Amino acid sequence: MTQRKFNFSPGPCTLPLEVLEETQRELVDYQQSGMSMVEMSHRGKTFGDLHDEAIGLMRELLEIPDEFSVMFIQGGATLQFAMTAMNLLNDSSKAGFVNSGHWATLAINDGSIYGDTYVAWDGADEKFTRMPGNDEIKLQPNTRYLHVTSNETIGGVQFRDLPDVGVPLVVDMSSDYCSKKVPWDRIDLTYGGVQKNLGPSGMAVVVIRTSVVEAIDKKLPTYLDYRVHLNGNSLFNTPPIFSIYVTGKTLKWIKANGGVSAMEAAAVKKTDVVYDAIEKSKGFYHSPVDPASRSRMNVVFRLPNEGLESKFLADAAKEGMVNLGGHRSVGGIRASIYNAMPGAGVETLVQFMAHFQSTHS
Amino acid sequence: MTQRKFNFSPGPCTLPLEVLEETQRELVDYQQSGMSMVEMSHRGKTFGDLHDEAIGLMRELLEIPDEFSVMFIQGGATLQFAMTAMNLLNDSSKAGFVNSGHWATLAINDGSIYGDTYVAWDGADEKFTRMPGNDEIKLQPNTRYLHVTSNETIGGVQFRDLPDVGVPLVVDMSSDYCSKKVPWDRIDLTYGGVQKNLGPSGMAVVVIRTSVVEAIDKKLPTYLDYRVHLNGNSLFNTPPIFSIYVTGKTLKWIKANGGVSAMEAAAVKKTDVVYDAIEKSKGFYHSPVDPASRSRMNVVFRLPNEGLESKFLADAAKEGMVNLGGHRSVGGIRASIYNAMPGAGVETLVQFMAHFQSTHS
Repeated sequence: MTQRKFNFSPGPCTLPLEVLEETQRELVDYQQSGMSMVEMSHRGKTFGDLHDEAIGLMRELLEIPDEFSVMFIQGGATLQFAMTAMNLLNDSSKAGFVNSGHWATLAINDGSIYGDTYVAWDGADEKFTRMPGNDEIKLQPNTRYLHVTSNETIGGVQFRDLPDVGVPLVVDMSSDYCSKKVPWDRIDLTYGGVQKNLGPSGMAVVVIRTSVVEAIDKKLPTYLDYRVHLNGNSLFNTPPIFSIYVTGKTLKWIKANGGVSAMEAAAVKKTDVVYDAIEKSKGFYHSPVDPASRSRMNVVFRLPNEGLESKFLADAAKEGMVNLGGHRSVGGIRASIYNAMPGAGVETLVQFMAHFQSTHS
Repeated sequence: MTQRKFNFSPGPCTLPLEVLEETQRELVDYQQSGMSMVEMSHRGKTFGDLHDEAIGLMRELLEIPDEFSVMFIQGGATLQFAMTAMNLLNDSSKAGFVNSGHWATLAINDGSIYGDTYVAWDGADEKFTRMPGNDEIKLQPNTRYLHVTSNETIGGVQFRDLPDVGVPLVVDMSSDYCSKKVPWDRIDLTYGGVQKNLGPSGMAVVVIRTSVVEAIDKKLPTYLDYRVHLNGNSLFNTPPIFSIYVTGKTLKWIKANGGVSAMEAAAVKKTDVVYDAIEKSKGFYHSPVDPASRSRMNVVFRLPNEGLESKFLADAAKEGMVNLGGHRSVGGIRASIYNAMPGAGVETLVQFMAHFQSTHS
């Protein structure tokens, strides 16, 4: 087999090797069934058990209270930008948004179609380099919920602690789901695509306070109605079998490796190694992000000029470290260090950073 | 390896063994890249090429004219029930529907949220046992499109030829995509989940007349807006990598096996074997479906009583033929015989049918 790359892609991204190898072994003939898992009916017991197991593992790992329901819905976080507002807002309520960057802006645009929305804190003037404190978030009367993006994948900006502002939160957790604990008492809904920490792309995980679903009282299209997904256990129509199947395996891997608290400790340790390397470089590398908001998932940094950044990316690729380029809208370097990125990847990266600096400064 | 089952599931369903074996070989280390295809960025060249190849194969195999665009959208046909109406209808237009069964009914319900809709032909009184002729479809003035379900997976009822009634068609092709030619001159849009003839579950293929997309003039949520998918080449947000990747392989398999015309000839041959066995049984087996509308994908039949049907299903499973049960809403037997079902599966089935009849009649 080819030497495995250290894949720093922001998502889809590196998955645990054990998960891939087990999936490979099973792919043609799932547990002596005479067929592949992806050929099986979603109404059958084999898939049903896997589906329920994946939901159960989400509950267990994230310590989701009984009063919440877990759903798997296709369309990624992007579809949730619309569904959250469509299901939760009505003519007499409004939603506040923390504008922390690119993805928050999309959530605001889609939300505005279904209700009265406003920006409760705007990071644009500071070029999205930090998250707000509680006292900076300006809520308007009659706010149904505050929408926040717990981690901005592009900006590398993360809430170290989610806001606590007296209204329920709706949280886009696409890029830090299952990498840290969740304060469920402040939350009505979390959502996120699985393709960072949880599995192969193809669906979002939605965790919603069940009473919020029960309070929906308008006619909605079938697939866009949380009541349909809740009542059908996310199996009203054909689910994305492979995504659910391999997400379940990834969740088992998280559990076997110490659960979410271990993932959180590892994320702090792995990203501290890179942030420390940036600080020790005396300005050769620099992070644009406020230290209190630096992401434990996506470490964003710059070099003295774009020419050196291009050279850095090309040389890193030669050393087996790929997909380190920043988002096309901002450039620079971005090391996405999700749950499945091994510590060896981070060690290789910081050794390379030191060597590159000594050669080019 | 375990003896491979003959899997007559209505979907997800049997895939070509070669496709599964190739996917298995590549799963951990895609073409010596040092990573899995499902770990790759959707912005990278490797996935981009596969994505464009899959779209190109759809175009080539179905002879899709240049004035149509092909999109991959998550959420299955169920999300398209809403999206078609949301994008194509407005306050001054209406849509007619052929009510041919369960799925058509859902399309009507979702469509009614976004425009004036009516049933142009209703098969309910005849228990959905046939499709209408052109002169039975009653169009109202100002009809923007007629929605039809080309094959009703549950009822086993199929249009042998799609309606030709002077208004554009919107066609749910979930269960017969790429099993027969498409009369594009009558059509504005086709859609269908991939999990029958095209690949593993996780998305729909939407083929739409590009001028129809360009005519959309209202604000829509990002993921539900055909303009977004068209302008982003279905890559505005993270796509379902595995579904696209393996759908591409399945399309290549169709091409290598003679293309859509060969699939159509094989479907006629394979289903005729079963329909002939039903006719030859002198009433032990009987099809509720009008001969002119019998599906080339889902062969539905009954036995003299439900006790015998249960015994039939249990005995068939012992012989390696699984998922032959009819939909839970109707019961009976349903043999779903999609492109990837080998002729040997059908031969085994009819031999079993003859043996079962001789034992139990």
